[in-house]
Amino acid sequence: MRSLVALLLGIEFAVASAFAGGPQGVSYDSVRTQLLEAGMGKCESYEILRQLVTAAPHRLAGSPGAEKAVAVTRQMMLDRGFENVHAESIMVPHWVRGLVEKASITRSRKHKGTPLIICALGGSIGTPKSGIEAGVLEVRTFEELQALGPKASGKIIFFNRPFDPSKVNTFEGYGGAVNQRSRGAIEAAKVGGVAVLVRSMTTRLDDVPHTGVMSYVDSIRKVPAAAVSTLDAEMLSSALRVDPNLQVRITLRCETLPDVPSANMMGEITGSEKPNEIIVVGGHIDCWDKGQGAHDDGAGCAQAIEVVHLIKQLGLKPKRTIRAVMFMNEENGTRGGKAYPHARERAGEKHIAAIESDEGGFVPRGFSVDADSAVLARVRSWAKYFEPLNAGDIRPGGSGVDVHPTVQTGVPGFGLNVDPQRYFDCHHSDNDTIDKVHPRELELGAVSLALLTYLISEEGF
Amino acid sequence: MRSLVALLLGIEFAVASAFAGGPQGVSYDSVRTQLLEAGMGKCESYEILRQLVTAAPHRLAGSPGAEKAVAVTRQMMLDRGFENVHAESIMVPHWVRGLVEKASITRSRKHKGTPLIICALGGSIGTPKSGIEAGVLEVRTFEELQALGPKASGKIIFFNRPFDPSKVNTFEGYGGAVNQRSRGAIEAAKVGGVAVLVRSMTTRLDDVPHTGVMSYVDSIRKVPAAAVSTLDAEMLSSALRVDPNLQVRITLRCETLPDVPSANMMGEITGSEKPNEIIVVGGHIDCWDKGQGAHDDGAGCAQAIEVVHLIKQLGLKPKRTIRAVMFMNEENGTRGGKAYPHARERAGEKHIAAIESDEGGFVPRGFSVDADSAVLARVRSWAKYFEPLNAGDIRPGGSGVDVHPTVQTGVPGFGLNVDPQRYFDCHHSDNDTIDKVHPRELELGAVSLALLTYLISEEGF
Repeated sequence: MRSLVALLLGIEFAVASAFAGGPQGVSYDSVRTQLLEAGMGKCESYEILRQLVTAAPHRLAGSPGAEKAVAVTRQMMLDRGFENVHAESIMVPHWVRGLVEKASITRSRKHKGTPLIICALGGSIGTPKSGIEAGVLEVRTFEELQALGPKASGKIIFFNRPFDPSKVNTFEGYGGAVNQRSRGAIEAAKVGGVAVLVRSMTTRLDDVPHTGVMSYVDSIRKVPAAAVSTLDAEMLSSALRVDPNLQVRITLRCETLPDVPSANMMGEITGSEKPNEIIVVGGHIDCWDKGQGAHDDGAGCAQAIEVVHLIKQLGLKPKRTIRAVMFMNEENGTRGGKAYPHARERAGEKHIAAIESDEGGFVPRGFSVDADSAVLARVRSWAKYFEPLNAGDIRPGGSGVDVHPTVQTGVPGFGLNVDPQRYFDCHHSDNDTIDKVHPRELELGAVSLALLTYLISEEGF
Repeated sequence: MRSLVALLLGIEFAVASAFAGGPQGVSYDSVRTQLLEAGMGKCESYEILRQLVTAAPHRLAGSPGAEKAVAVTRQMMLDRGFENVHAESIMVPHWVRGLVEKASITRSRKHKGTPLIICALGGSIGTPKSGIEAGVLEVRTFEELQALGPKASGKIIFFNRPFDPSKVNTFEGYGGAVNQRSRGAIEAAKVGGVAVLVRSMTTRLDDVPHTGVMSYVDSIRKVPAAAVSTLDAEMLSSALRVDPNLQVRITLRCETLPDVPSANMMGEITGSEKPNEIIVVGGHIDCWDKGQGAHDDGAGCAQAIEVVHLIKQLGLKPKRTIRAVMFMNEENGTRGGKAYPHARERAGEKHIAAIESDEGGFVPRGFSVDADSAVLARVRSWAKYFEPLNAGDIRPGGSGVDVHPTVQTGVPGFGLNVDPQRYFDCHHSDNDTIDKVHPRELELGAVSLALLTYLISEEGF
């Protein structure tokens, strides 16, 4: 434990910083203090998240859980006195996992009968009822797959390129691996593959498979695709070195049903001076049908509700309208995000900013800004207000998948940046449960979002 | 999940930053990359920590566990080819908890027989064998206690001031509460109190008591002191409102035995140009006899060993000697830290820097610098090398309890600053186990420490 001398030096430094603001400094510093006092004691965002994931742990668009989540968040907004609480209807894809997803090694002297822990990728077709049994070709890249050409025909293509663990930003590790999941089935089919196994997208070595969206193109044969746990990916790779002719049988019952109706849910605090000028703060209410979608993105939804709740609770009366939006269908279609800027309800509204939290409910670091250099410079000039939250890192970057279509209409976009070390432990898997979310980390993100939202509301761009 | 566009924008920004260094920039940027590649894939610091806490979960100075920890870390250093591996003998206090520590409410209509979850504070005397039974006086501050004066006589004094949850830096919350634990027994005895119960020092509401050191002064009667879990502190407070005359019985068997021999353990990589100029990087190998001392401070010890290991593994041949030191007895005496700068082994050595990691194995934020303004400015000029580790926050502040006596001899001191949100969940309690440590967070701290150590070794002050 650090000595008290150290501590007191630290406090002195913090106090010195707090008065380093410009002419508005004292006022926004005071708002930050009020937000911290109202927020950190109760960590209400955590209670909102708890209620959401308890009522609707599985919230894939089109599922009963997703509709339950819309209803639950509506009620939470009404209970907290939000205004203009309403749903905006959209149609969403309806993919279902089915009751069976399994794989095992067959035709191997040493490994026959060994199960592989898998789960279907979102959007995959199913296999025939008896499954698909074939030899396995392990590759790390699409180039390697193409080079192997004829050897791929009739095979299950096993994409086994791990994250690069040396990337401090785990999203870079993900970015370097995820095309195996998103395009693997297309590339496999091109060379005659019959199915796809993809090493799970995670920084961890464990026995939990991580799902996520995959895609087909109409011009290329569709083959089923599943994620395999990283430990079983290592095991299968070892087994293939010993016995390159082993076979694997994969059985999936997943299927895509016709689109169904769903909705974006939202509620707000009306601006006191410019009610038609809107600041959106949102997350996506849908999640995969694994775990509870606690970090991805129950956290962002809970924070968005908490932002409006905190601002109302403090009696701040923001000049512009602050709207919490629960976007639907980020995971496999972004229908909610795409519909939002073009909905008939947007008539007469002018959007000033669109802010998203969708990197998990971890401790905040700052914001990325998807806007012109003038807006970036403006928000950077506010960094001093966020530094006492340890969230003063303002940098150019994307906002979020859901608000991106709004940002594309010319609205400045913002994304909450959080510490990314633990995100891919959970992402799209049974690990993504609320016990992985820390109440203080989640609430500090909500406080940071509330402060940014309020600053934009008062200062405009 | 953030879009790939966002991700790529982020990467572009990171790449642009990486080349923003001075003339030495490319070289130290390259060292950082090598450290990340060697460190993050294996997270060896986590394996070191695992071995330490498995072999010696309880390591209070004077205990068999502490001696086991000295032996285990010696072997780890030898196995990794460290040079000058040796122990430096010291005498340490020998406090033992005893087999019994319990409390319950007595003489109350409603709550009679309700147990209170407690643990003795380190250094406390025991109670008589049959315990101490008395009425309870709840206070929040020493001023309140003094004002109540005569009402305190013959009572168990119950200090129940919580952390201020609005402090972003939880060490400030701790700093605002910890005098109840450290001086409570003295203040209670001054007004005739017969024993002390202290609300546990934690940000959480749970049923786990948190121990920690307390003190007596020779001129004032000694009374026994225990921590009570925060949930039971709330319960007791409620019960007192209903029934102010309830009594509590506390039984503790703890005692202080004569001092025993122990040691600081250390090993190093010898400087290639200035072998007698030493950079210390250390943590404390002792911990409380609750949990495993995984964050406090197994983490710091594991990181210190990993720093020397990484530098050796990369073949870096630092100009100055880098020494990993496992300080003994930080928790209840700092005998190791106090002995180190004055030990006979220091003859002929010149210390250039003393670095400590003792805020838990959480994700690093940067360093605090306990040195003159020239050194601070120098280290701040290196911030660019740490920013890609998200650890570029260099600020004035304390170093660490163990290196402080060395710093007081004029050596620049440094403390690794980490994200503090989760630290007091674990601190000094059964919660402080290795499952609360994340391998990537711990290793990023080790990489940050290795980079700072190497920079100081090459650049000097």
